[in-house]
Amino acid sequence: MSLLVVGTVAFDAIETPFGKTDKIIGGAATYISHAAAYHTGDIQLVSVVGDDFPEDAIKSMERNGVNTEGLQIKQGEKSFFWSGRYHNDMNSRDTLVTELNVLENFDPVLPESYKTADYVLLGNLTPAVQIRVLEQMKERPKLIAMDTMNFWMDVAMDDLKKAIAMIDVLTINDEEARQLSGEYSLVKAAKKILEMGPSYLVIKKGEHGALLFDQNGHVFFAPALPLEEVFDPTGAGDSFAGGFMGYIAATGDTSFENLKRAIIVGSAMASFTVEKFGVERLKGLSDVEVDARIQKFVDLVQFEIDLTTA
Amino acid sequence: MSLLVVGTVAFDAIETPFGKTDKIIGGAATYISHAAAYHTGDIQLVSVVGDDFPEDAIKSMERNGVNTEGLQIKQGEKSFFWSGRYHNDMNSRDTLVTELNVLENFDPVLPESYKTADYVLLGNLTPAVQIRVLEQMKERPKLIAMDTMNFWMDVAMDDLKKAIAMIDVLTINDEEARQLSGEYSLVKAAKKILEMGPSYLVIKKGEHGALLFDQNGHVFFAPALPLEEVFDPTGAGDSFAGGFMGYIAATGDTSFENLKRAIIVGSAMASFTVEKFGVERLKGLSDVEVDARIQKFVDLVQFEIDLTTA
Repeated sequence: MSLLVVGTVAFDAIETPFGKTDKIIGGAATYISHAAAYHTGDIQLVSVVGDDFPEDAIKSMERNGVNTEGLQIKQGEKSFFWSGRYHNDMNSRDTLVTELNVLENFDPVLPESYKTADYVLLGNLTPAVQIRVLEQMKERPKLIAMDTMNFWMDVAMDDLKKAIAMIDVLTINDEEARQLSGEYSLVKAAKKILEMGPSYLVIKKGEHGALLFDQNGHVFFAPALPLEEVFDPTGAGDSFAGGFMGYIAATGDTSFENLKRAIIVGSAMASFTVEKFGVERLKGLSDVEVDARIQKFVDLVQFEIDLTTA
Repeated sequence: MSLLVVGTVAFDAIETPFGKTDKIIGGAATYISHAAAYHTGDIQLVSVVGDDFPEDAIKSMERNGVNTEGLQIKQGEKSFFWSGRYHNDMNSRDTLVTELNVLENFDPVLPESYKTADYVLLGNLTPAVQIRVLEQMKERPKLIAMDTMNFWMDVAMDDLKKAIAMIDVLTINDEEARQLSGEYSLVKAAKKILEMGPSYLVIKKGEHGALLFDQNGHVFFAPALPLEEVFDPTGAGDSFAGGFMGYIAATGDTSFENLKRAIIVGSAMASFTVEKFGVERLKGLSDVEVDARIQKFVDLVQFEIDLTTA
């Protein structure tokens, strides 16, 4: 079923302890689309780039089954650019450059064919832009997921809360969950955030995995795969979200049991992304590779135990 | 089967954001014994206290099935005392007081009946003391587990490496694994540490769970239970180790599959400990409570997924 993806398509320049890149193709929607496209063939992209963005990169997305009718190309303007340097632990980074460029006045316009999308994934953007996307939908999608970040909690909390009330799944990291709820305990934070509207909350903990909460007190935990080397963590969270929603769109099942599977699939896609710069590792993944990776998650956590009082 | 436990029996005074205690009964071997005693009835304790240690507390251990013949009571001396204050995040703490007292010259002497114990758990102590315990064993135990800490890596690395070469399971935290191996990646760290001798390595990550590695590249991950409130983290790691070895001693099975179960049981015991001060919560746990807690771990991580290429 169709998956509408809204988010940045951009240039990144990345430095890690293992190497550095010149400007490469990045942006949340780029990672999301590549990770989701592995699972579902009907992806509708809403984003904006400048005329400096290579046509090759757009063609590459289209070949992957991504509809780019909703990708605006602003003549005479430049694409969003982010540059950062990771510290030795790979868990923290300094932003060196942020040039908003085309993103500054981004007004998302949905082509007619997008307005009845079955599933929607709102990548991290100004909450007002996320709301404007949802307002253009003709039918309530089966499931709307949204990513956001602490910055919007600092500068646009009212809009953010309005957006959160419109969606089904919020994905944020642990520090953001604490900031949004004012609770240190993630269990308490989840309760408060689920009272704001969403049916499900995903708390991303980076190398420490991800938690899925629903409104009935169910909790599911997916670990991150222990890797010999994290080459470049950029885009891991977006690849996770893309794999998660791609799997849900492919299966058309929004039950808690299926969301658990989707979290594992998302974690698997993220584990590929961090092995190389950019979306290089996500391109051309084979079914055998993806299945073998998912099996690693099965092996990592599954156990059988007899309860004495059962 | 019998489980020999070596470690501190002591007084603690604890401050958390939720409250503070006067001197209460603490020490690694206290937590280990209580957590292990739930699972197996034949625990042999080796430790030392001063004549200030309450007889009631010793009697309470004996009623729990702990043999205290190897607990030395030093007349005219004082018990080991530790006092600490936890920060608001409960993940870090300041040590306020450390009085070694009887621990300073602790010479562990094994009663004859201990020298053929089936299983051994060496709590965190001077590596030389841990070695002296093993040297008194008449038969090679079926499994020897050992806990240690960064302090011994700083001041007694040679002894520590000698001890590590004598054991089967090393349990340390993530920072200690990095320090011991010189590797940041826990997967690489595990490989290096397993080359030092042990068959298994358990890396404890506190609220982020625990990893079990073997020498054949197998990895198992157990999450910590997401709790509404961590009341007092003191003793969580020791309760984990006690539940882990108590379960192995009770089942008499040292396979990787059974060590996975033991890790879950240890995590369950730790999740009880942090709910109250000291060993209060571990005392008098019912089978129904423990089974319900283990079931929470099952629910937290279990999922079923069909692989496309399977």
